[in-house]
Amino acid sequence: MPTATRLAALRQLLRSRGYDALVIPRADEHLGEYIPPHNERLLWATGFTGSAGMAVILRDGAGIFVDGRYTVQVRQQVPAGDFSYHHLLEEPPVEWLLACLQPGARVAVDPRLHNLQWLRETEAELAAADLVLCLDTDNLVDRCWHDRPAAQVQPALLLDESHTGESSVSKRNRIGAAVKALGADGALIFAPDSVSWLLNLRGRDVPCLPVLQSLALLWTDGSVDLMVEPARMPTGWQQHCGANVRLHTPAEAEALLGTQAGKRVLADPVTANAWSQQLLEQGGATLVAGTDPVLLPKACKNAVEIAGARAAHVRDAVAVVRFLAWLDGEQAEGRLYDEAQLAERLLDFRSGAEHFQGPSFDTISAAGSNAAMCHYNHRNGTPARLQPDSVYLVDSGGQYIDGTTDITRTVAIGDPGAEVRRLFTLVLKGHIALDQARFPKGTTGTHLDVLARQYLWREGHDYDHGTGHGVGAFLSVHEGPQRIAKAWAPVPLQPGMIISNEPGYYRDGAFGIRCENLVVVAEVAGDMEKPMYGLQALTLVPFDRRLLDLSLLDARELQWLDTYHAQVAGTVGPLLPAAEQAWLQQACAPLAVDS
Amino acid sequence: MPTATRLAALRQLLRSRGYDALVIPRADEHLGEYIPPHNERLLWATGFTGSAGMAVILRDGAGIFVDGRYTVQVRQQVPAGDFSYHHLLEEPPVEWLLACLQPGARVAVDPRLHNLQWLRETEAELAAADLVLCLDTDNLVDRCWHDRPAAQVQPALLLDESHTGESSVSKRNRIGAAVKALGADGALIFAPDSVSWLLNLRGRDVPCLPVLQSLALLWTDGSVDLMVEPARMPTGWQQHCGANVRLHTPAEAEALLGTQAGKRVLADPVTANAWSQQLLEQGGATLVAGTDPVLLPKACKNAVEIAGARAAHVRDAVAVVRFLAWLDGEQAEGRLYDEAQLAERLLDFRSGAEHFQGPSFDTISAAGSNAAMCHYNHRNGTPARLQPDSVYLVDSGGQYIDGTTDITRTVAIGDPGAEVRRLFTLVLKGHIALDQARFPKGTTGTHLDVLARQYLWREGHDYDHGTGHGVGAFLSVHEGPQRIAKAWAPVPLQPGMIISNEPGYYRDGAFGIRCENLVVVAEVAGDMEKPMYGLQALTLVPFDRRLLDLSLLDARELQWLDTYHAQVAGTVGPLLPAAEQAWLQQACAPLAVDS
Repeated sequence: MPTATRLAALRQLLRSRGYDALVIPRADEHLGEYIPPHNERLLWATGFTGSAGMAVILRDGAGIFVDGRYTVQVRQQVPAGDFSYHHLLEEPPVEWLLACLQPGARVAVDPRLHNLQWLRETEAELAAADLVLCLDTDNLVDRCWHDRPAAQVQPALLLDESHTGESSVSKRNRIGAAVKALGADGALIFAPDSVSWLLNLRGRDVPCLPVLQSLALLWTDGSVDLMVEPARMPTGWQQHCGANVRLHTPAEAEALLGTQAGKRVLADPVTANAWSQQLLEQGGATLVAGTDPVLLPKACKNAVEIAGARAAHVRDAVAVVRFLAWLDGEQAEGRLYDEAQLAERLLDFRSGAEHFQGPSFDTISAAGSNAAMCHYNHRNGTPARLQPDSVYLVDSGGQYIDGTTDITRTVAIGDPGAEVRRLFTLVLKGHIALDQARFPKGTTGTHLDVLARQYLWREGHDYDHGTGHGVGAFLSVHEGPQRIAKAWAPVPLQPGMIISNEPGYYRDGAFGIRCENLVVVAEVAGDMEKPMYGLQALTLVPFDRRLLDLSLLDARELQWLDTYHAQVAGTVGPLLPAAEQAWLQQACAPLAVDS
Repeated sequence: MPTATRLAALRQLLRSRGYDALVIPRADEHLGEYIPPHNERLLWATGFTGSAGMAVILRDGAGIFVDGRYTVQVRQQVPAGDFSYHHLLEEPPVEWLLACLQPGARVAVDPRLHNLQWLRETEAELAAADLVLCLDTDNLVDRCWHDRPAAQVQPALLLDESHTGESSVSKRNRIGAAVKALGADGALIFAPDSVSWLLNLRGRDVPCLPVLQSLALLWTDGSVDLMVEPARMPTGWQQHCGANVRLHTPAEAEALLGTQAGKRVLADPVTANAWSQQLLEQGGATLVAGTDPVLLPKACKNAVEIAGARAAHVRDAVAVVRFLAWLDGEQAEGRLYDEAQLAERLLDFRSGAEHFQGPSFDTISAAGSNAAMCHYNHRNGTPARLQPDSVYLVDSGGQYIDGTTDITRTVAIGDPGAEVRRLFTLVLKGHIALDQARFPKGTTGTHLDVLARQYLWREGHDYDHGTGHGVGAFLSVHEGPQRIAKAWAPVPLQPGMIISNEPGYYRDGAFGIRCENLVVVAEVAGDMEKPMYGLQALTLVPFDRRLLDLSLLDARELQWLDTYHAQVAGTVGPLLPAAEQAWLQQACAPLAVDS
């Protein structure tokens, strides 16, 4: 069905309900980064597949709003005859609405698909121009989307304490106590990954993201009201979670949230949707605005979660090393594949691994100049083929029962030349400096970011993305509050946090480079004046020696590479078939002159 | 007169005016860091000489509130019989008031001595407990302070365009336009250093700080209403400033601020006092809250100001080098002076220099373990004498007509031993790394801070102060918005900003180390992919070679030291008498093996 037909249906409904505009965000009612197919409403209405964006449908016009990553892609996917194109940040939807509408006009939004802060700010901005924000949970897209796929509803996994390291009861008791200390009677646990971690459950219904689609109220006594499709709860869940977890269907959620009169409920206005908080408030509860209380405990992995992450990373390394060895063999034979074939081959290698559940995000498999686009996806066009004398960038990860992985390697295809080697080496120097960092309690990722950039900066280069994002324990490959970036990250790095170390370099139309390991924050052993934290690499895959300009590496950096490679060879080598062992041995051979 | 007698007088007045408490901050009506003697009200009431603090006088009790720097000093200076001691941040005055007072109690504050934000927050906190904040500009301390010194009133300096590089008219026109762009009709220019910079005037009435004690309203047409004691305005000021600067006496200020009905006036609620903004508001003006519009233009020095700073630093270097040469000669003869004698000698060397106006702050002259206190002042007790085999730390600066200086050097007295050398070298490595930094537009001091700390961190050490503060052009030795520190500094570093580079290390009861140069932000020359900024050292004084552990310095660092020392020797050497030239030659001799 062409986009124009869908727009016509939406506009008919728009008029019949007396609206002048409809806002369609790239979000579902769980406000997560990954959205199951049946909730891809923006995609249905516009054809746009990007991970962030918003559409506004007027009675006689429509606009689509995307950020700088998607300015090219949106023009390829969304018909110019149906939509005007706008920059999400520079010309935001609300400004456009103010310009397009007359006083008194009514703008429909579904309060389940927006956070409370956005809704409040938007309502105030519209009201200042005499426009009316209308909350409508009978979603207009859903009403028009006749071939909407059914929601995936599979039973959740009961994640054993041998993987979680802490019972759900223990987590709820300590976080319940923390909520009490904030002066609240309970907390709205809105993010599905927070609910999943808190209850030691994992879902199977969202691609790449093993969360249980649900929300919950956690009370200070550790009891929980869980709002979830009952068919998602497997046999034995009550015993697994404990008697004080009470189940409510999604249909009962509205009534439950609306009958908490007198309760003080902690809720995060930035991450929880407006609908749930408005129901609480309308029912007589008092909202206590604050950060999701599960966020920080979830980010600081315990010893069992860290051991799981290490084990998952060894299995993941076996798959990636086998892929890299295979790729070298194929290119030696002159067989240069396309990006899709390469991504599929890599997935094949991972698929056999113990505990593997699927990719942790859409693989970025980028040949040649495609790698200059940080968020390239070969599925958006014709996959490109590897070119001789270039570099291939592959950013991929897996979800394993015991951990989540995310790794980027940049691979020489033939001889990419001195300029690529120079820049690869500058990127890797930054990666090493960050990996080696020691820092006291209180240090945040913003403080450390420069360590990864300093060598590029010295030569007049930079990269336009963060240096590191938090990663969950068999959960989202992007989690907070930990991050390493120029933007201010107020929460200090703390032991147990898993985070990526991924400096890069991108030359438009030419090539892209990224060196990414996951690392875990840990206290540094030794007798020091102040306790210091450091980063320990979880990822165990060699960096491509063929891309090094050895003249740019100092003795410490060579020593780091040799030590890291020795660890890779020692850990991963014994798990490989003989031919691949030989490849790894060569890939990990020492570089230092005196070795 | 003992403190108890002063408190008795204050309490009598307190009762007669019907108050239950009086708040006395360490601030005067200009809210600056440096306070002239006749405005040292906290000192008069308590005996406390620190640079930050607050007292609260109750009818039957009194508390003094200081931060962590002054917990020892406050007990030495303020009688325990008269005051209870409190931590300014951990047990703030308002909390203490809430604990001490009964509902209905009246708390007196002078709104000239507090910023608007503090006043509003305090008023709300007190009101929540049924306490009444009473604004009283007939200052109670002033009424009781019968031997209060007269205010210094000397004519201001008319600073020539050969020093300022821009006429006052030009400054007012461009900042007036910026104020207009913010939607305001004018701006309250409250900080005396902002007024002084804007009008190209300097005062002589505050120790260390050459500002004209004044405030102003700047209008979008570039005209100014200046509120200042007329005796401070020298002959020719009108010609110097331009015809559209209108003078008002301090007595007329109240009427002027109170008659701006209908005007939208930009004012900074954090840096401007409550009194001036409340008058504007009561008179019918609308306050537009925002940053002082002079702050950023003042921070980004123009070419003339930078050339002035360079020239002032050469003269300052001559004085400091002569002092260091003299100190070495004296210690070679076994003459070890006390901290006061050393500070006086250093001032003597500076005093002869062209354009020298006085110190830019109280010299920190710290022998042995006294240097472990970052804000040590030898005037607070008996000055200590230099000890053999220790280090001496001297942090000092000068105000020159063409620039402000601030330098710290740490000097070997005999042989301080390997541990001091190790730590000095780690501190200096951080200083060098920061000095060498290159960084793109948008980088703030928070991003760069880690460069100065990384080597200390690696060995388990840190220092508990910022790495760099902004410095004015013949203005305050502490200015914003530029800073290099762990705390988030949102304003990016920009060309022309002068800032200190001063990592340190402090071992309680043992020794203190600091290596401080002033540097200026400048665009890096050369053909680079992105424009990069870097730091250029203004300070030209050798670092003490005797404190180096050469095994900890790499080739780049040795090269940096040799290049810097060659620049010092080449610039300062020719300006010295022969004997001191020889000393400098030796102090600057190359260190690199191959030289």
